Amino acid sequence: MYEVEVKVRADHEAVRERLHELDARSLGTVTQEDFYYDAPHRDFAETDEALRIRRESDDGDAEEVVTYKGPLVERESKTRKEHETVVGDGETVDRLLSALGFEAAATVTKERERYELDGYVVTLDVVAGLGEFVEVETEADEADVERARIGTYDVLSELGLNPNDQIRTSYLGLLLEDE
Amino acid sequence: MYEVEVKVRADHEAVRERLHELDARSLGTVTQEDFYYDAPHRDFAETDEALRIRRESDDGDAEEVVTYKGPLVERESKTRKEHETVVGDGETVDRLLSALGFEAAATVTKERERYELDGYVVTLDVVAGLGEFVEVETEADEADVERARIGTYDVLSELGLNPNDQIRTSYLGLLLEDE
Repeated sequence: MYEVEVKVRADHEAVRERLHELDARSLGTVTQEDFYYDAPHRDFAETDEALRIRRESDDGDAEEVVTYKGPLVERESKTRKEHETVVGDGETVDRLLSALGFEAAATVTKERERYELDGYVVTLDVVAGLGEFVEVETEADEADVERARIGTYDVLSELGLNPNDQIRTSYLGLLLEDE
Repeated sequence: MYEVEVKVRADHEAVRERLHELDARSLGTVTQEDFYYDAPHRDFAETDEALRIRRESDDGDAEEVVTYKGPLVERESKTRKEHETVVGDGETVDRLLSALGFEAAATVTKERERYELDGYVVTLDVVAGLGEFVEVETEADEADVERARIGTYDVLSELGLNPNDQIRTSYLGLLLEDE
């Protein structure tokens, strides 16, 4: 399965109203804190890899996962090899990585308010230091990636947003650009 | 707290009989599979570090933990900095480590039959490729390490074993020596 997603900057208030008019189903809100690492033996910016610990919480419940993202294998669909698993204690993984020479590089913190609309997930992200974004995403078989991409553009349009405003840079990338 | 342990080669049958005579309490048997890794940027043999995924199972239940062990900070008590946490899926951690350039170096598989005796844990280890060992261990405050060490020797003697036969090399070290 491929993840197809499109992201634009957008004021949330107007989008929330449109979601309400369109009877989108609320999926709740979570907070994600992402801790990205630099490797001692590779330049991840150059190799286009990422190593991350994510702490996700929604009132009370928290879960921590560690994720490796490999380089893009296909630019247009933003497909990557990904290895991800839950860990018992993220701080211990942080200490383990530090002991191995991996260094905390950047933190991305965001509030994600999710809705379901026509089989797509619409996410209203408030990203610390960056502002408000809207993401539309879905999963598709390889054969349906193009159709799915057009679908995400249609949903954006329905929400009063312009697919041409698409931002392909990750939040981490945007934060690092700002530095 | 410090972990104080002593390990000798020993035939299990005679030790099991002594444990029975001494009314030792059985703590059950577990199987441990330890997967050790080489680092891409350091020689762990030289730096005296270790990175391990352990899969521990006792009839049906299995748990996987990832562990980093730092160099010995004190040789006599074998004290090390250790970072250890449960992971959701050990194979995913293996793939994540492989993607980062860590390579599977050695596997240590053992059956551990545990007993409690006079506040000490006595473990009868059958280590694949190495044979039968008995370990006696306890935890102690810094001030009590010496007394605890003498205690482990006393327990060994009670079991008909000789503290002078102590082996300080880890199972991993013994397996690598054999190669």
